[in-house]
Amino acid sequence: MRLIESVPNFSEGRRHDVIEQIADECRKVANVWVLDYSSDPNHNRSVITLAGEPDGVEKALFNMTKKARDLIDLKNHSGEHPRMGATDVIPLIPVMNTTKEECIALSRKLGKRIGEELSIPVYLYEDSATSPERVSLSSIRKGEFENFPSKIASEGWKPDFGPGEIHPSAGVVAVGCREYLIAFNVNLGTDNIEIANRIAKSVRHISGGFRYVKALGFRLEDRGIVQISMNMTNYRKTPLFRVFEVIKSEADRYGVPIVGSEIVGLTPLQALVDVADHYLKLERFDVSSILEKRVLDFFSEGDN
Amino acid sequence: MRLIESVPNFSEGRRHDVIEQIADECRKVANVWVLDYSSDPNHNRSVITLAGEPDGVEKALFNMTKKARDLIDLKNHSGEHPRMGATDVIPLIPVMNTTKEECIALSRKLGKRIGEELSIPVYLYEDSATSPERVSLSSIRKGEFENFPSKIASEGWKPDFGPGEIHPSAGVVAVGCREYLIAFNVNLGTDNIEIANRIAKSVRHISGGFRYVKALGFRLEDRGIVQISMNMTNYRKTPLFRVFEVIKSEADRYGVPIVGSEIVGLTPLQALVDVADHYLKLERFDVSSILEKRVLDFFSEGDN
Repeated sequence: MRLIESVPNFSEGRRHDVIEQIADECRKVANVWVLDYSSDPNHNRSVITLAGEPDGVEKALFNMTKKARDLIDLKNHSGEHPRMGATDVIPLIPVMNTTKEECIALSRKLGKRIGEELSIPVYLYEDSATSPERVSLSSIRKGEFENFPSKIASEGWKPDFGPGEIHPSAGVVAVGCREYLIAFNVNLGTDNIEIANRIAKSVRHISGGFRYVKALGFRLEDRGIVQISMNMTNYRKTPLFRVFEVIKSEADRYGVPIVGSEIVGLTPLQALVDVADHYLKLERFDVSSILEKRVLDFFSEGDN
Repeated sequence: MRLIESVPNFSEGRRHDVIEQIADECRKVANVWVLDYSSDPNHNRSVITLAGEPDGVEKALFNMTKKARDLIDLKNHSGEHPRMGATDVIPLIPVMNTTKEECIALSRKLGKRIGEELSIPVYLYEDSATSPERVSLSSIRKGEFENFPSKIASEGWKPDFGPGEIHPSAGVVAVGCREYLIAFNVNLGTDNIEIANRIAKSVRHISGGFRYVKALGFRLEDRGIVQISMNMTNYRKTPLFRVFEVIKSEADRYGVPIVGSEIVGLTPLQALVDVADHYLKLERFDVSSILEKRVLDFFSEGDN
């Protein structure tokens, strides 16, 4: 079986029936599954996690984007989270027997259809970006829905697909291939936020740490401890165990123990296998030696 | 999806076409998959690893046992490995969304059919055993095919199902539920076999070690190192990481490093997740947070 994951973000986090109708567009498609979803009323935004065979994923995302265009009107939308479209962003992630190149091709195919058939301007971002200014989602989204009518007409912001002006109610959308993002938090046995902040600085890219780590210190008020909250943006190149070991060493320097960690949301199998592989010093281990993975490999598009 | 694994052993390791015909009986059944198989000409024995939905597994195993009965004649069989039947042993292992109780029930149902429809006497063993003497496979198999005509008529050895005398060419078969067995080897950076033997003794059950570990020291001649070769007979109750840590501590006492480890054959996902969970000190982690596992959960009997 081949799997691509997507976590489209929709600008609706309050009207449950609207989110359900959008999710239903995914559930209707064969060989694609809604793995998870969450809505935030304050952000007024929902994130749906889906995965499936590449063709099915394209179909599901197109139909979901169409449904969101019909049901969400950004002219009447407010929430804490920045946004520029009814469907705000569509990341595509290769997770099993698929490549980055396939996801980039899929983002272009899907983007073209959304632009031409739904009349929504599309910006390709991250690994699909057509210029350096479009790699970062926040750079594309800057100005948000309200300022996009002028931004879209300005130098360098012609969309990659679709009309030269925003969709009046659905705005614009970003589509692109990126790596799997793992939300990984490490808890320290202290209430000293300064220690969490210092360790966060030691591992995060921007401060001289690992290339694919974003990190911040947080207080967990209810537990009286602090946390290093991280986004691991490429677990293949910056693996969890390596960052964990540096945090352990840094915490040790302050005489503070690691009391726990957590992975928020879903994680790809390989990321955990890499941890076991490291600590057990496994020789030549392959995920296809995992019984459940081998069974999954037997399933293929259209049949089982 | 619900999965039961089975690793039936057949007394044929030389005639490739015979093994293939037996494996084909499994491949023909929907929702059951041949995950792996290996034949040993010296042992004159083959092991087929299969997994699938409970009903399919029963059907596949029955048809494979029937095919083995028709193609293998133990009167003309010799090999290094002890054996008592054409199909020698059928272990049933709950691996995903299935329980030990279901596997025991399945062993009884399958055993009854093999006894009544194929006229092969069946002994239930391990977790399915109906008396303490029948828990151990080697205790049942003692005397082998050649001595079974008298053994089967002796006190306490009436089979659980089937006729009161052996099948003239297919002998008898053991069927039972057991835990997943993981073959786990740890390599030491020394050529001193004495150290491997001592450490093996420290972790294995029989010498005072862990309840679910069988261990022996071996030389890896080609690499000039030694290995602690283990069968982990219950990875839930005696997890890999705990045994690994004891080996590390013991090796350290001799000033010897662990240079690697290996898992031979297939392993259930949970066994590796437990390792990652331990070393990362994960809080409340569940295998259903693994993307591939969640996709697999969507597949169910007869549909996907």
